[in-house]
Amino acid sequence: MKRKTIGIDMDGVLADIEAHWLNWYERDYGVRLGPEIFLGVKESEAFPDKEAVLKFVYSPGFFRTLPVMEGAVAAVKKLSEDFEIYIVSAAMEFPLSLFEKREWLAEHFPFISWKNIIFCGDKSIIDTDYLIDDHCKNLDHCKGSPIMFTAGHNTNHTHHTRANNWQEVLTLMEADRCGTAICR
Amino acid sequence: MKRKTIGIDMDGVLADIEAHWLNWYERDYGVRLGPEIFLGVKESEAFPDKEAVLKFVYSPGFFRTLPVMEGAVAAVKKLSEDFEIYIVSAAMEFPLSLFEKREWLAEHFPFISWKNIIFCGDKSIIDTDYLIDDHCKNLDHCKGSPIMFTAGHNTNHTHHTRANNWQEVLTLMEADRCGTAICR
Repeated sequence: MKRKTIGIDMDGVLADIEAHWLNWYERDYGVRLGPEIFLGVKESEAFPDKEAVLKFVYSPGFFRTLPVMEGAVAAVKKLSEDFEIYIVSAAMEFPLSLFEKREWLAEHFPFISWKNIIFCGDKSIIDTDYLIDDHCKNLDHCKGSPIMFTAGHNTNHTHHTRANNWQEVLTLMEADRCGTAICR
Repeated sequence: MKRKTIGIDMDGVLADIEAHWLNWYERDYGVRLGPEIFLGVKESEAFPDKEAVLKFVYSPGFFRTLPVMEGAVAAVKKLSEDFEIYIVSAAMEFPLSLFEKREWLAEHFPFISWKNIIFCGDKSIIDTDYLIDDHCKNLDHCKGSPIMFTAGHNTNHTHHTRANNWQEVLTLMEADRCGTAICR
């Protein structure tokens, strides 16, 4: 039987981009800020210097050195036993990130085949049974069932099934395996 | 009304990779071969030196310097008036090609937004109304209607609607605009 498919976003889902931004901000501006600055605002608006996020994402090495989101490796490995996993990243916006993201995946998720990696822009033509993502712009129009992975910027959006961490993703997907509808 | 979507492959469709291989083979081996060597065989089997194709596709600069397929720019520009165009390339197999392909598209197809570019592996989760591609492995399982763009290696495959060049693609898609079923 054909296995169900899950599309999984990178930044903010597999990779802890908020932690990385906070670290780089401290490194470059000498100020340690906390994750509460991201709550309910666009990522680019979170820092006192509104140019910081753009400066970081265009810096060589930024995407290559992202920390892995807690629990992501073990969870994706577990999910790949029962589902066909596709990594779906809107990497096309930042051309320099393409090679870095490919290398990052090879390092941290070597069990994901190159055949199952998609770097795109608009995700609306990606047809997986589920999409795990932190952005409404991707989840609102996806072809499958959307699962919103919690990030500061999406705190106030309540119209998608939410997973606060990778353990909650596993719990949701276990419900799917048991035949329970897990998305609204 | 939502426009129909067309996925378009790069190598062998937007880019004349056969011509490029012949040119690089002559440059490196001193022998000028003709396009008939590709007829009915795998691309990697076409040259006397069976390692040549692999060597070329892993060479920095190979994908950045591909010649554009005759008529491709004007045809894609024309099609983009009536269809939503997505470039869908299996670039993930060759990590070095990612940045080069992105740059190549920016040079030759600057009217294609980054939002409409997809670099992937397996194309089976790409859901466009049409897919124009030269490989059966992509066309046989695509979600939309397949259009086989003629290449030497696919000469003997007859189970897909075929376009021998970009003028024939335009003729086929004009039929779609007129409500005629164009695929088998």
